[in-house]
Parts: sequence; structure tokens; C-alpha cells
Amino acid sequence: MNAVGVDVGGTKIAAGVVSPAGEILAEARHPTPHSPEKLVEVIVRAIGEVRDGNEVDGVCLAVPGFVLAPEDRVVFSPNLRAIEGIPLKEKIGPEIGLPLIIENDANAAAWGEFRFGAGSEVDHLIFLTLGTGIGGGVISHGVLLRGAQGSGGELGHVTVHATGPRCACGNRGCLEALASGTAIGRRAREAAVENPGSALGRLAARRKVLGEDVTELARDGDGVALSVLEETGRWLGIGLAGFVNIFNPEVAAVGGGAMEAGDLILAPARRELRLRARPPSRDLVEVQAATLGPASGVLGAAALARNADGQYALGD
Amino acid sequence: MNAVGVDVGGTKIAAGVVSPAGEILAEARHPTPHSPEKLVEVIVRAIGEVRDGNEVDGVCLAVPGFVLAPEDRVVFSPNLRAIEGIPLKEKIGPEIGLPLIIENDANAAAWGEFRFGAGSEVDHLIFLTLGTGIGGGVISHGVLLRGAQGSGGELGHVTVHATGPRCACGNRGCLEALASGTAIGRRAREAAVENPGSALGRLAARRKVLGEDVTELARDGDGVALSVLEETGRWLGIGLAGFVNIFNPEVAAVGGGAMEAGDLILAPARRELRLRARPPSRDLVEVQAATLGPASGVLGAAALARNADGQYALGD
Repeated sequence: MNAVGVDVGGTKIAAGVVSPAGEILAEARHPTPHSPEKLVEVIVRAIGEVRDGNEVDGVCLAVPGFVLAPEDRVVFSPNLRAIEGIPLKEKIGPEIGLPLIIENDANAAAWGEFRFGAGSEVDHLIFLTLGTGIGGGVISHGVLLRGAQGSGGELGHVTVHATGPRCACGNRGCLEALASGTAIGRRAREAAVENPGSALGRLAARRKVLGEDVTELARDGDGVALSVLEETGRWLGIGLAGFVNIFNPEVAAVGGGAMEAGDLILAPARRELRLRARPPSRDLVEVQAATLGPASGVLGAAALARNADGQYALGD
Repeated sequence: MNAVGVDVGGTKIAAGVVSPAGEILAEARHPTPHSPEKLVEVIVRAIGEVRDGNEVDGVCLAVPGFVLAPEDRVVFSPNLRAIEGIPLKEKIGPEIGLPLIIENDANAAAWGEFRFGAGSEVDHLIFLTLGTGIGGGVISHGVLLRGAQGSGGELGHVTVHATGPRCACGNRGCLEALASGTAIGRRAREAAVENPGSALGRLAARRKVLGEDVTELARDGDGVALSVLEETGRWLGIGLAGFVNIFNPEVAAVGGGAMEAGDLILAPARRELRLRARPPSRDLVEVQAATLGPASGVLGAAALARNADGQYALGD
């Protein structure tokens, strides 16, 4: 049966009706409001819009931040503070009259890649999304690792450099603080100061350099921008090496806005992974770009919604 | 039905017949030979000894190092090089005439703690064993995470300090290089040089200080020995914080020889975990000593042997 996936992001809310085969049959998008009341209102509206004329039997909200599943709420969401603490099931469930489940956005996207994308042929997938932060999701033996409270899979918040830079989560040296889009921007601004004559340095003299600028300049051949992406890729590889030793997955898929840089990040990540992970795991894993793009959240959430009993395992 | 668990260690081989309830009905122990032929011979002999007079229907070998399950062999085992490359099932299976499976030793011990020890009441357990190296095992949603090739669960080989000391695996800054018994010994020898007047310093002037000496001196009140254990505990906590964010487990159980130090290591680990992990995961997890001691490997292996089809999930 069809189901609705809703991807609640820091800037936009995307809802879709998805068939069991992963076709998106209807879609709606709205800018994300940053007050709790409006947020609930827009989520309910988006669900209503896509349901119109489509038979569906469940809804899953993919939400940013640390989920506390037994209470159906998000306890910490640095990029969408308005969602913190809202009893989502209680507020939204009665408005839609359908089974509703709540899942972390990166877990949902990982499930999307597992069912329909980079992991559709395997039983073991790790998924990272490099954006403002780093989201993660793991499928091991065909099971989405949600943990005891639905807060599992936070691959971005693993210390890879104990004395490293401060992370948005409060810790130091998290993978997120070293390999996210935000980290690329920070590293680029530092590199611009050190290399004022580079293309990156000249851009920085005019305006604040963002992560996406770096990819563009690197593709145009700016060596400083390239080295910023290479350093980011090395940190990504350090994180991946640990995950590969932990999970021994067939595929490590990397998505998110920063993956516009593609192999400019993935190639150094693969090299670092080879140095730091052990056989047989390091020789098996294929580090690749995620294949579904921004749709992975909606697709994965909808696939999860079909398992409204919370048993997220192969063969739903 | 009863099954045989065999724990193949770097110094001794322990075999036991274990009942489904976790009682050890017969035991045998032998020093570990360090040639491939003798190793196979002693394993076969130990299995024969414990089977004598006991009905059993399967055997699991818990082996040190990185397992390549599809080929039933160990590809890398720094503390037992003799086991590397032996086609274990082919060599041992025909000699014993029973279903035989191969599992990493720490994975087996984790399963032991999950079925009969620190994790017997929960669905999500992470297990670390601090010895010469650091072994790890994870049970998530009741499933032992073996990975695609049986090489998963290597929690000791995760980079927590990218520029840290060299690890036996070739990487830098692995948790094992910072929080194993070997790391305690190395740290203690450095601290002894810096503090020649301390009890630790005086011992080091007489002979090589080992990890176990440090616990003894710390219990006697030597501040330098205490600070060595505290630093070790902080590194352990840094590693645990990442694992807790990844797995959101109810219990993190720590075993192995270095746990003779108990709370001298676990208390600073818990403090560091609180600083570095996020709610709700950090507030749920109980960091505790493993409860089965050295028997966890035999107990877990035997419990796994009852699932000789390789499906290691709850309810075997």
C-alpha cells in the first residue's frame, strides 16, 4: 500500500506519497516555519495536500535531531529548535487520522537508500549525509539501527580527534565538526586568510565564503579550494574507517549538500580509509555517493511508514 | 540442547559444554600452542575432552582477530599469528563430526554477556574487553552485529584521536592504542620516568611495569598510578561516547583483564561520556563491569553454536 513520507528540514518541509516500489506519486513542499505551532500546522497541511486523491495507510515524519521515540519527540535539534519538545504524535496524529511514526531524518534517508538506492542490493549499509551537520544511519543485517530509544545512528557525533574543534553538540572533535558542510566553510575561510592571492582568498575578500563556493572554485582548478576539500575528505575517511571496522558493511553511501563535491571529497576519503581500516572489511566496502539525492528522506520515511508497528526489518 | 563453546586465546584455550540456561557442565583448558598444526590438534583435543559423556549438538570456536566468515578463517590476529589463514572449519569439522561455526572472540563474549550476564535484561548492549588489545561486540535490537563477512564489532579499532599513538593494527589513535591494558602499561612507564619518586617510579626502576601493576599501586594510593588509570578511563569514555551516540544502548559492559581496576577506570569513563555523548542516549546507558568474567567467551560461543545456521538473533 502507498504511504506518506514527510521530510522535515531546517529550511523546507517535503511530503510525498510513495508506492511500495518507491515511486513518488504526489509531492508537496513548504518553507519550514520556525515556531512550534506553525510547524505542526504546515506538516499537517503538507500531508493533507499529498493525500488528496491518493489512498495511503500510514505516515512517517523524518525529523532532524536526536529522537526520543518512546515520547515521540525530538530532544535536541540545533538547526530546527522549534521542533524540540513537541509531542509530535499527539499533536499531528489526531489531525490526520492515520498511523503515524517518527524517525530521525538521516535514519529515514538511510532506509531510503537501503530500499531504493545505493544499498538496494546489500544487507549492510552505512549512510552519511554531509550538510550543515552530519547525519548518519546504519542498516546491519537488514535492520535499521534505531537503538533503545530511537536515537541511534548518530554517526556524526563520534569523536575522531579528541582535541579537535568544538561541535554544535557540545563535544570536541566530532566527525561533524571536521567533515560537515559547515566545517568546509570554516576551513575555507581559514585557508583564504592564509592564501589571500588564491581564488578562494579573493572571494573571501569580497564576501563570506560558504561550503558550496569551495566546490565551485575547486572545479575551476583553485588549488587552495581543492586542498580544503581534500582535508575534509581525509577526515571523512577517518570516520568511515572506524564505521567500516564496526559494521563491516558492503556499502558506505555519502549524501547531502556537500556531496556536490563528489570525488573531490570521496577520493581522499577512500585513501584514508585504506590506511586506517583493516581487511577484510576495508577491502569489501564500496564508498560511493548516495543515489537518491534529496528524495531519500521522503522515500525512506514512506517505506518505514508501512511498518507502523516499529519493526523496521527486511521484507516489509 | 547443550553445545560446546571454545575460547581460543593468545595464552590458553578453554572449552566448555554449556546448557541452554548457561550452566557450564564440563570444562577443559590447555596452553595455546603457537604453530598452526598444534593449534588445530589442541582445539580438537579440548573439544573431545569436554564432549566425553555429554550430549552436544554443535560447536562454536571463538577466535581472536579479524574473522572472514565466508572462508571460516582469521585474516589478522596480532596476538595469535599461528591462527591466521587456517581453514578452521575444513581442518576441525571432520575431526569432531558436529556442526561447527567460527566467531570473533569478543563478539562471542558479547553474546555471552547478552544472554547470561550484564545484558540479559536488555535488547541493546555494547561490550568492550580491555586486555592486550581491545575487543568489542555489539547487540542491537537483539541481533549480534557480525557484518557482511563476520568481521564487524571491532570497537577497538576506531580512531578517537587522529594524531594519537600507533596501534597494533597499523592505524593511529585507535581506541585500543589509548585504552587497552597495553596502553596502560605504556602510559605507566612514561609516568614513571616523569615521577621517579612515586611508587610507580620506584617499581619501574626495578623492573618493567605492566598494566596489572598499575591497578595494584593505585589501590595502595599511589597518585601517579591513579592518574594513569584516570587518563585511560577518560579515553575509554571518549570511545564509549561515540558508541553510545551510534547505538543508543541500555548497557555498555566492560570486561577484560584491565577491568581489575574497576571504577578506577569506569568512573572517569562515565564522566567523559557525560561530557561527550548526547541525551537521550547518554542518560539511558549504564556503563558497568561485565559480569561473567573470563567465562563469557565459552558461554557466548556455546549459545551461538545452538544457532549453527548463522542466524544469531534473540530467541535462539
